[in-house]
Amino acid sequence: MKTGLAHLYIPGPTNVPEAVRRAMAVPMQDHRAADFGILTAAVTEGMKPVLGTTKGHVALFPGSGTGCWEAAICNTLNSGDKVLMARHGHFSHLWAEMARKLQLDPVIVDVAWGAGVPVNEFARILGADRRGEIKAVFVTHNETATGVTSDVAAVRAALDSAFHDALLFVDGVSSIGSIPFRMDDWGVDMAVTGSQKGLMSPAGLGILGVSPKALQACETARMPRAFFDLKDMLRAHEAGSFPYTPPAPLLHGLRAALARMQEEGLDTVYARHRRLANGVRRAVAAWGLEICAEHPLLQSDTVTAIRTPAHVDAREVIRIAYDRYNCSLGSGLGPLAGKVFRIGHLGDLNEGMCLTAIALAELALVEAGAEITLGSGVAAAQAAFVRPVARQSAAAVAAE
Amino acid sequence: MKTGLAHLYIPGPTNVPEAVRRAMAVPMQDHRAADFGILTAAVTEGMKPVLGTTKGHVALFPGSGTGCWEAAICNTLNSGDKVLMARHGHFSHLWAEMARKLQLDPVIVDVAWGAGVPVNEFARILGADRRGEIKAVFVTHNETATGVTSDVAAVRAALDSAFHDALLFVDGVSSIGSIPFRMDDWGVDMAVTGSQKGLMSPAGLGILGVSPKALQACETARMPRAFFDLKDMLRAHEAGSFPYTPPAPLLHGLRAALARMQEEGLDTVYARHRRLANGVRRAVAAWGLEICAEHPLLQSDTVTAIRTPAHVDAREVIRIAYDRYNCSLGSGLGPLAGKVFRIGHLGDLNEGMCLTAIALAELALVEAGAEITLGSGVAAAQAAFVRPVARQSAAAVAAE
Amino acid sequence: MKTGLAHLYIPGPTNVPEAVRRAMAVPMQDHRAADFGILTAAVTEGMKPVLGTTKGHVALFPGSGTGCWEAAICNTLNSGDKVLMARHGHFSHLWAEMARKLQLDPVIVDVAWGAGVPVNEFARILGADRRGEIKAVFVTHNETATGVTSDVAAVRAALDSAFHDALLFVDGVSSIGSIPFRMDDWGVDMAVTGSQKGLMSPAGLGILGVSPKALQACETARMPRAFFDLKDMLRAHEAGSFPYTPPAPLLHGLRAALARMQEEGLDTVYARHRRLANGVRRAVAAWGLEICAEHPLLQSDTVTAIRTPAHVDAREVIRIAYDRYNCSLGSGLGPLAGKVFRIGHLGDLNEGMCLTAIALAELALVEAGAEITLGSGVAAAQAAFVRPVARQSAAAVAAE
Amino acid sequence: MKTGLAHLYIPGPTNVPEAVRRAMAVPMQDHRAADFGILTAAVTEGMKPVLGTTKGHVALFPGSGTGCWEAAICNTLNSGDKVLMARHGHFSHLWAEMARKLQLDPVIVDVAWGAGVPVNEFARILGADRRGEIKAVFVTHNETATGVTSDVAAVRAALDSAFHDALLFVDGVSSIGSIPFRMDDWGVDMAVTGSQKGLMSPAGLGILGVSPKALQACETARMPRAFFDLKDMLRAHEAGSFPYTPPAPLLHGLRAALARMQEEGLDTVYARHRRLANGVRRAVAAWGLEICAEHPLLQSDTVTAIRTPAHVDAREVIRIAYDRYNCSLGSGLGPLAGKVFRIGHLGDLNEGMCLTAIALAELALVEAGAEITLGSGVAAAQAAFVRPVARQSAAAVAAE
Repeated sequence: MKTGLAHLYIPGPTNVPEAVRRAMAVPMQDHRAADFGILTAAVTEGMKPVLGTTKGHVALFPGSGTGCWEAAICNTLNSGDKVLMARHGHFSHLWAEMARKLQLDPVIVDVAWGAGVPVNEFARILGADRRGEIKAVFVTHNETATGVTSDVAAVRAALDSAFHDALLFVDGVSSIGSIPFRMDDWGVDMAVTGSQKGLMSPAGLGILGVSPKALQACETARMPRAFFDLKDMLRAHEAGSFPYTPPAPLLHGLRAALARMQEEGLDTVYARHRRLANGVRRAVAAWGLEICAEHPLLQSDTVTAIRTPAHVDAREVIRIAYDRYNCSLGSGLGPLAGKVFRIGHLGDLNEGMCLTAIALAELALVEAGAEITLGSGVAAAQAAFVRPVARQSAAAVAAE
Repeated sequence: MKTGLAHLYIPGPTNVPEAVRRAMAVPMQDHRAADFGILTAAVTEGMKPVLGTTKGHVALFPGSGTGCWEAAICNTLNSGDKVLMARHGHFSHLWAEMARKLQLDPVIVDVAWGAGVPVNEFARILGADRRGEIKAVFVTHNETATGVTSDVAAVRAALDSAFHDALLFVDGVSSIGSIPFRMDDWGVDMAVTGSQKGLMSPAGLGILGVSPKALQACETARMPRAFFDLKDMLRAHEAGSFPYTPPAPLLHGLRAALARMQEEGLDTVYARHRRLANGVRRAVAAWGLEICAEHPLLQSDTVTAIRTPAHVDAREVIRIAYDRYNCSLGSGLGPLAGKVFRIGHLGDLNEGMCLTAIALAELALVEAGAEITLGSGVAAAQAAFVRPVARQSAAAVAAE
Repeated sequence: MKTGLAHLYIPGPTNVPEAVRRAMAVPMQDHRAADFGILTAAVTEGMKPVLGTTKGHVALFPGSGTGCWEAAICNTLNSGDKVLMARHGHFSHLWAEMARKLQLDPVIVDVAWGAGVPVNEFARILGADRRGEIKAVFVTHNETATGVTSDVAAVRAALDSAFHDALLFVDGVSSIGSIPFRMDDWGVDMAVTGSQKGLMSPAGLGILGVSPKALQACETARMPRAFFDLKDMLRAHEAGSFPYTPPAPLLHGLRAALARMQEEGLDTVYARHRRLANGVRRAVAAWGLEICAEHPLLQSDTVTAIRTPAHVDAREVIRIAYDRYNCSLGSGLGPLAGKVFRIGHLGDLNEGMCLTAIALAELALVEAGAEITLGSGVAAAQAAFVRPVARQSAAAVAAE
Repeated sequence: MKTGLAHLYIPGPTNVPEAVRRAMAVPMQDHRAADFGILTAAVTEGMKPVLGTTKGHVALFPGSGTGCWEAAICNTLNSGDKVLMARHGHFSHLWAEMARKLQLDPVIVDVAWGAGVPVNEFARILGADRRGEIKAVFVTHNETATGVTSDVAAVRAALDSAFHDALLFVDGVSSIGSIPFRMDDWGVDMAVTGSQKGLMSPAGLGILGVSPKALQACETARMPRAFFDLKDMLRAHEAGSFPYTPPAPLLHGLRAALARMQEEGLDTVYARHRRLANGVRRAVAAWGLEICAEHPLLQSDTVTAIRTPAHVDAREVIRIAYDRYNCSLGSGLGPLAGKVFRIGHLGDLNEGMCLTAIALAELALVEAGAEITLGSGVAAAQAAFVRPVARQSAAAVAAE
C-alpha cells in the first residue's frame, strides 16, 4: 500500500493548486442561465494575455489539446492541402499522423528527436514553394516528449522572408502559461493548448487561440466539421455559452488558475519556470547524464527528458519510482521508450517539489543500476536555488 | 444575493451525488501508469449493463455526447451517405444539422415537436429503399427538448421487417441510465450518451456503445477522423488508456456513479425514475397545463416539458424561478422558446426533490401570471407518492 | 438505498453553503506560523457585528457551544454561587444540570415547555435578592427544543430595575446569526454560540462573546479551569493563536460564512429568517396542528416545534421522513419525545428548502396516521412567499 | 505569492491523506439519527487496536488532546491530590501547569529538556510514598517539543515494583498511531491523544483511552466536570451518540484514517515511521548538527528536534523555510526557542516527503548562515532509504 503524497512529475496533468481544486468543487449548474456567460468570458478573456494576444479570439473545446489540433485543421484547411511540419518527437509525430488522417498532404521534415524545428529547412521549403501550395506551417513550440523548445519567432521570420502566406499553427500545449508565448508578435494563427499543464487544471478542455486571419480562412475551408466547428463555438462564446454542454467545473478551475497567474504576474511565472528548470538541468549534469535536447538553447523550461546510461532501462527507473516511492516520472515515448525518462517541471511548482523529484529520481536510478552519486543532483539544484547568505530584515523578505 | 441550496431541475447536468463528488476530489495522476487501466476498465465494463450490452464495445470520448454523435457518424459512414432521421425536437434537429455538416445526405422526416419517432413512416421509407441507399437510421431515444421517449424496439422491428441492413444509431443521452436501454436486444449499433445526465456526473465525457456490426463498418468508412477515431480509442482502452490525456477526475466520478447504480439495482433505478416522473405528470395535470408529449405513451420518465398558458411567457417563469427562488428549470428550445419550460427529473433524485421543483414552479408560474392554484401540483404529486398508512415495524421499513 | 439530496431540517448542524464547504477544503497548515493570526482575527472580528458588540471580546473554544456554557461559568463564578435560571426546554434543562455539576447553586424557575423566560418572576426574585447572592442570570435566548425565543432585553430591564449586579449569560446557540442579537445593548456579559447553526459551518467550535464586566469577573473567580481558561484564550487570540491546536478548517469555514453574512447584510439575513419561519408557521396552521411555543410572540424564527395529533407518535413521523424520504426532522427531546417534531429553518435557507421540508413532513405525517390534507401546508407557505404578480423588468429583479 | 505544494513538516497537524480529505467532504447530517451510531462505533472500536487495548473504553471529546488531559484529571482525581510528573519539554510543562490550575498538587521532577522520563527517580519517589498520597503518575510518552520518546513500560514496572496503586496517565498525542502503544500491557489508565497527528486528520477531537480502573476512579472523584464528564460521554457513545453536537466530518475522517492504518497494518505503519525517522536522523548527523534527544534510545520516530549552530537563530531557519520555500518546520518552544527547529515525520509520510523536508531545511540552514554542505543530509537519508540494486521481477515488486 502506498502512503504519503503521490509525487507527480509528469509533464501533465500537473499538480493542481489547492485554490483551483476548491474552485472546481461546485455543484452542477445551468449552462443556459443568464449569468453563465460571466464564467465563460472570464476564461476566454483571461486566456488572452497568457496567449499573448489582444487581436485574437479564444475558443474552448471540451475534450483536450488534441481536439484543438483537429479544430485548427478542419476549420481552415481543405482535403489535400499541403502543410509543412517537422517531426522531432512523439507529439509532433502524432500531429503529423493526424494531418494524414484528416487527408491533408503533409510535407514532413524529419529531424533528430532532440532537435528543434529546422528553421532553415523550413525557410528553404517555403522559399521554394512559389505557388503557395503550402497552406499551413505546423510548429510544436515545446515538444513534450524530448523537452525541446523551438523558436516560433524564427519560423515567423522564415515565412515573412519568403513572403509566404501560409497559416502558422503552433502547438503550445506544454508551453503556454509556462514559457513566454506571443501569439500576436509571432503572427501565430492557431495556438493550441490544453487545461492540464501550465494552466494547472485537470485535463478536459482544449483551448484554441485564433487569429483574425485564421478566422477568415474558415470561410473557404470545406473540410467537414461539426463538434469542432470554430464559428459555432465562437458565436456561442459571444453569447456566453457553448454549442453543447460544457464541463463547468473545469471552467471554474481555469478561472481560478488564471487569476492565480495574474496575481503572481506572468513574467514572474515564466521566470520561476526558468529558475526551477535550471535547477533540474544542473542536477542532470551532476549525475553525468545527458539531456535529450541537443543544445542548451533548445532545453525546455517545462520538461526535461533525461537519457539513462546504456545499461539502464528507463522504464525500470520509472517503475521503481512509481512502485516504491509513489512518484510518477514521465516515460520515454516511441523510439525513446526505455532510453529516456522525463521530469515535468511546470505549473504550480516550487523549489521543494523539484528537489523531491530529483531526490527520488536519484534513488530510482541507483536502484535500477545507474552509477550516480546519491544526493549529487540535489546538491547541484540546491546550489542553483540557494540565495546569498544575508541577514535580511523579516519585513524585506515578507515583501518578496 | 442568493442563499440556500441551488435547486437544479434542468435535464442535465443533473445533481451529482455526494459520493460522486467525493470520488472526483482526487489529485492529478499519471494516465500512463500501469494501474490506470483499472480505472478505465471499471468505467467501460460498468457501462455495459447500463447500455444493455454484452456483445458491444464501449468507447469513452472526452468532450460530450455531441462528440459521440460525431464519432458514430465519422467512423462508420461515408460522405454522401443517405441516413434516415426524424426531426421532432431541438436535439434531433441538431443531430440532423450535424449530419448535413458532416456531408451526409439525411432523409429527414419532420413530425410535430411532441411526437415520437414516426415508426410507420420509417418502415415505409425503409421498405421503399430497395437498393439499400440508407446506410443508417438515427433515433433520438429521449428527445430532451420535448420530453418524448420513442420506441427504439419498434424501429428495429421496422428495419427487420424491411430486411434492411442500415446501421441503427440511437441518441440515449437523456435516457441511458434512467430508462431501460437494451442495446443488444434492440440491435442498436451506436448508442450515444454523456456523463452528465442519468450517469450523475459532470459533463465532459461522451460514451459510445458500439456493436460488432458498427465496428465492422469502420473498415470501409473513409470519412476523415482523428480525435474521434473509434478504433484508436478502443485499442487504447484495451491497453487501459486513451490516445490523449483523459479527464481522470470524471472517470473516478463515473466509476462511483456506476457503483451506486449497481448497488441500487438498475431495475430499481428505472422504477424510481418512473415513479417520480409520474408524480411530476400528476402535478402538471393538477395545474391544468399541457405536457408537450403528444401521448401518454410518449411521456419521458426523465424530463417533462410543460406548456405555459398562452398569455404566460415560459421564459418569464424560468427567470423568476432562477432569480427569486434559486431554481433552475429547463428552457424551451428553438420554436418552443417562451412556450415551454421543462422539469428534469433524472439522475440522483428523490420525492423531496420533485416536490421542491413542483412547489417552486408553482410560485414562478403564479408570479408570471398563470392562474394555477398554489399547492395543487404538490398535492397531486404527494398523492402519487404517499404510501398506505400502516403501522409497519421499524425493522420492516429499515429493510426497504 | 437512499438516493438524492439528503434533506436536512434539524435545527443544527444546518446546511453548509457551498462557499463554506469550499473554504474548508484546505490542507493542514502551521497554526504557529506568522500569518495564522490573520485567519483567527477574521473570525473573532467578524463575529462582533453578529454578536452585536463593539465593546466585547470574542473567544473561540474548540469543542462546541456546550463547552462555552462551561467556559462562561468556570471563568467568572465560584463554587456555591447562586445563579438564576429558567427551565422551559431540553437545553435550558441541560444548562441547569451543568450548573449543578459545576457546583453552583442554581435557583431554577420551572415553567411550561413552550413558555419563554419568566421575566416577571425573574424580576421578583432579583428584587428580593437584597444581598446580591445571585451572581448570574442565565437566559436561553432561543430554546431549540421548543422553538421559543425569549426576551433578553426584558431580562436586562428586570436586572436594571432591581439595581441588580448579577452577570447576564445568554445561550444564543440557535439564535445568533439568525435572529437579532444585541450584546452591548442588552448588557449581555457572556453570549454563547456554536459554529453549526446560524453560522452555517460544521460543529466543532464554541464561540463566546465576553463583556468587559465578565472579563473583570475572571479576576475573582476561583473555579478550577484549564482548557476553558478564558484569559489564556484571549491572550492567545491577541497573538493570533490558540493555547492548543485549533481546528483550522473550521476557522476557514467560519470566515467564509461570516463573509457571506456580511455580503447578504445582517438585517437581510434576519428578515429572511423571519419570512421563511412565517411560511412554516402558516403551514402548521393549515395542517390544524399546534406549535409548541405558547404564544405567537414567542415563536422562534429558527426552529418550529410541532405537536403531532394525540394518536400519532412524532417519532414515527421522524422515522418515516428519514427512512423513506431521506429527510431529517428534529426530534422531541425529553418529555416532548413522541409528542413533538421540529423543523429547523435557519442558516443557509431559501423558500424551496422550506417547501421541501413542509411537503415531506406532510407525507410523513399522513403515513404516520395524521389526518391532514396533503399539500395544504405547502399551499399556505407558498401563499406567504408569493409576490404580487407584476411585470417587473428583468433589471429590477436582478437588482434585488 | 507562494506557489506549489505547501510543504508541511510540523509535528502536527500532519498531512491529511487524500482518502481522509474525501471522507470528510460530507454534507451535514443528523447526529441523533438511528444510524449515526455506526459512525461513532467505527471510530471508538477502530481506536482500540491503535491504543493497544481490548479491555479499555474509548471516549471522543470534541476539542483537542489538551481537552483529554483535562478529562483524564477531572474525572478521576480530587482537588489537592498529589500527582507525579516529569518536566522535560514544553508539553510536559503545559500538562504540569494544567495540574496546578486544576488544583492538584503536582510533584514535579525537572530534568533536562532532551532527557526522557526519569524512571529511577520516579521509582524512588513512588517507593517512598508509603501512604499512597500520589494518586496518579503522568507520563509524556513522546515529548513533541524535544523529540524524546520515554519508556512507559518502565514506569509501569516502577509502579509495580513499589506496589503503588497510582493511576498511570500517558500523553500519547504525538506517539499513538505512529509508535507502538500498548495500553493494556503497560497498564495505562488514561491514554490521551488527538486527531491531528498519527491519526492523519485535522485537529478538533481529543481521544481518551480509559482503563476499567480509571473508570472505577470516576466514582469517587469529586472534581467538578460537565463538558468533560467521562461517564456521560461513554454512556452516550454506547448509544452511538454524544452528549452534545459532535464534529461529524472529523469522525468520517478518522474512520477513513483508521481504515487506512488497518489496511497498511499497524506494524507496517510503525516500521515505516522508524525507517523514515532513521533517514532524518542520518541527515542531521551528516550536517554535523545535534539532536535534542540526549541519547539515541530516546530519539523519537515521529519528530526530530535539531539544534542549530550557536550563531544561527533557529527562528531564522524556520522563517526562511516558510517565506521562501513554502515549508513549515516546527519551532523551538519555551527555552528552546531560537535554538531548535523540528522536523515532524509522522502520519501519512513517505521517503520523498522526508527528503523534501531535509532538502529545504538544508537551504534554509545555509541561508540562515549555517555552514553545512548542501545535499549532505539528503544523501545520507537516501543512503538509509536505498534498497540493494537488484533485478527484481515487476511482479515481485508489485506484490510489495
